Amino acid sequence: MPERLGPPRATPLFGRVALIGLGLIGSSIARAARHLQLAGTIVAVDRSEETLARVRELGIADEVTADAAAGVKDADLVILCVPVGACGSVAEAMRPGLKPGSIVSDVGSVKKSVLAQVEPHLPEGVHFVPAHPVAGTEHSGPDAGFSTLFHNRWCILTPPDGADEAAVERVREFWASMGSNVEIMSAQHHDLVLAITSHVPHLIAYNIVGTAADLETVTQSEVIKFSAGGFRDFTRIAASDPTMWRDIFLHNREAVLEMLGRLNEDIAYLARAIRWGEGDKLFELFTRTRAIRRGIISEGQDAPDPDFGRRRGDQ
Amino acid sequence: MPERLGPPRATPLFGRVALIGLGLIGSSIARAARHLQLAGTIVAVDRSEETLARVRELGIADEVTADAAAGVKDADLVILCVPVGACGSVAEAMRPGLKPGSIVSDVGSVKKSVLAQVEPHLPEGVHFVPAHPVAGTEHSGPDAGFSTLFHNRWCILTPPDGADEAAVERVREFWASMGSNVEIMSAQHHDLVLAITSHVPHLIAYNIVGTAADLETVTQSEVIKFSAGGFRDFTRIAASDPTMWRDIFLHNREAVLEMLGRLNEDIAYLARAIRWGEGDKLFELFTRTRAIRRGIISEGQDAPDPDFGRRRGDQ
Repeated sequence: MPERLGPPRATPLFGRVALIGLGLIGSSIARAARHLQLAGTIVAVDRSEETLARVRELGIADEVTADAAAGVKDADLVILCVPVGACGSVAEAMRPGLKPGSIVSDVGSVKKSVLAQVEPHLPEGVHFVPAHPVAGTEHSGPDAGFSTLFHNRWCILTPPDGADEAAVERVREFWASMGSNVEIMSAQHHDLVLAITSHVPHLIAYNIVGTAADLETVTQSEVIKFSAGGFRDFTRIAASDPTMWRDIFLHNREAVLEMLGRLNEDIAYLARAIRWGEGDKLFELFTRTRAIRRGIISEGQDAPDPDFGRRRGDQ
Repeated sequence: MPERLGPPRATPLFGRVALIGLGLIGSSIARAARHLQLAGTIVAVDRSEETLARVRELGIADEVTADAAAGVKDADLVILCVPVGACGSVAEAMRPGLKPGSIVSDVGSVKKSVLAQVEPHLPEGVHFVPAHPVAGTEHSGPDAGFSTLFHNRWCILTPPDGADEAAVERVREFWASMGSNVEIMSAQHHDLVLAITSHVPHLIAYNIVGTAADLETVTQSEVIKFSAGGFRDFTRIAASDPTMWRDIFLHNREAVLEMLGRLNEDIAYLARAIRWGEGDKLFELFTRTRAIRRGIISEGQDAPDPDFGRRRGDQ
C-alpha cells in the first residue's frame, strides 16, 4: 500500500493522544498520527498483554499500558477503538484519569448506543465527539493496520446536541489530516445509513456463507471450488472480526431489523418473479443496479478494474 | 493481466472452431484458443453487426459471420456462448450447417435447461458436451475478454448419459489447455451447486443494491458515499450482464428458489437472534464463516490480500 499521506505537521495537532484498543483501526490511527505528527505523544492502551507486546515490537506508540485510567492521564484526545459493546465499561474504567477540557472520541460503527453508553461516565468539562471512519479490511489486530487506511474514505462525526464547537472542529481536523472526508450527521441518521451500507450487507454475507456450509446436497469442497462464480465475494466480509460484528448487530438492532424487513420484501418480490417467469421485472432491476456501481466508482469509493482488480490467487 | 498460458501447440487440437456469441466468454475463448493454437481456424458468429465489426478490429478470429448455419459449416467444435435463454433458437438456426461427427458445446451457467433446449435440434452423429467455465468478471462484450480468464478456474462438463467418450475427452483437453481444472458431474447436480455458489449470491447482490436505491430515509448519494463499509462489494456482481442473469434465474428456477428458501430460514434465525440479544448465536456463525474464506484462499480461488487487494479508487 503506497504512502499517499501529506507531509508531517510542524507542530502536533494534539499534545497527547491515547488510543484504547490497538486492532486494525487503532493501530492504523497510531501509524497515521505518527507519520503525520498529529500527536506529540501516542499512548497505546489495550487489555491484552499480547497486543501491547506486539505494539512495542512494531514501535507504533510512545507508551503502552493495560491500565485505561493511567493511559488517558493528561491526554488531550482519547479515542476508543474497541468493539461497540465494550465502550461503556471502558469509559467507566478510564474515567478517573480523564483531564478536564480533554476530548473523548471513538470509532464505533454504531453511534446511538455508544453515545448512551459513554456519556454518563464522562465528567463535566470533558467533550465527547463520536466518530466513525467508514474504512477497514477483513483482517484484525495490530499487524493488520496501515497508515493510509482512512485516505479518501469518509469519516462521520455525530456530535450530541450542544457539543463544544471547538472540540468538534479539532476532531474534524484530526480525521481530515489522515486524508478522510468528514461529514456531520445525527447519531440516529448515521445508524440508519450504516445499517443499509454496511451492517445488513455483512449480515447477509455471513448468512449466505453459513447457509452454504450447512447444505447436505452440496459439499463444502464444492462450495469452495466453484466460488469464483460469485460466492467468494461474500466470504471476504464474512471473514471480518466476529466480536466487533456481534456487537454491531446487538447495538443497532432496530435499524438492522428494519432494513432486513425491507430486504425480505424485495427478495419475496424477486422470488415471485422467478417463479412466474417474469423476466422483465428481473431485467429492469439488473439494469438499474449497474448505475449504482458506476456511481461508486466515479466517487472514488471503489476501483474500476474488473473483478476488483484482484490479484489471481495462483500468482 | 499477465499471460500465464503455456506455449502454443505444434498442431491444433481442432481444425475449425466456431464460437457463437462474442461477449466476455466467447471473446476470451477466441483469444486463448488463438494464443495456444487450439484451433486451425476460428470462426466468430454473432447476430450483432456491431460486435462482428469489433471482433474484426480486434483481430481475434479468422472469419466472422452473422449466419449461424454458415458459421458452423465444416466446424469440428461449435461452442454456444450466448445467454442460456437463447441456446434453443441458436441450436435450431445452426442445425443445417452442422457436420456429422462434430462436437457441440456451450458455456452456460445452467445445464439442465440447456440440455433440454439444444439436444432436440442436433442431428444424429453430432456430439453434445455441455460445459460451464466458472469464471468471469462483471464486464461484458468482446472488449472485456482476455486470454487468461479461465486459468486456474474450474470448468464443469455435464455430458448426458451415453455421451461419446472421445468427444468428452476432447472438450476436456480444450479446457485443460486453457488452464482450467475440469470436473464432470450431472446437469442436475451442477444446477444445485451453482445455485448456491453463484446464482443466489448474484440475486442477493442485485436485491440489496436495489433495496438501497429505493429507500426514502437514506439518499442514493449517502449509499454511494458510505459504501466502503461493505455495500460496495455487492455492487460489483450486481453490475453483471442483465440479459445473461435474467436467463439464468428463469432457467434454474427450482434450484434457485430452493436455495433461496434455505437462505430465508437462516435470515429469520439471525433476525430473531438480533431481536432477542442472543450474541452467542451470532458469534458462533461469524467464527465459522471465517474458515470458509480461508479454504477459498488456500485453494487459489481468491487473492489473500486484504480488501481483495483492490487498487484504491483515487490512485
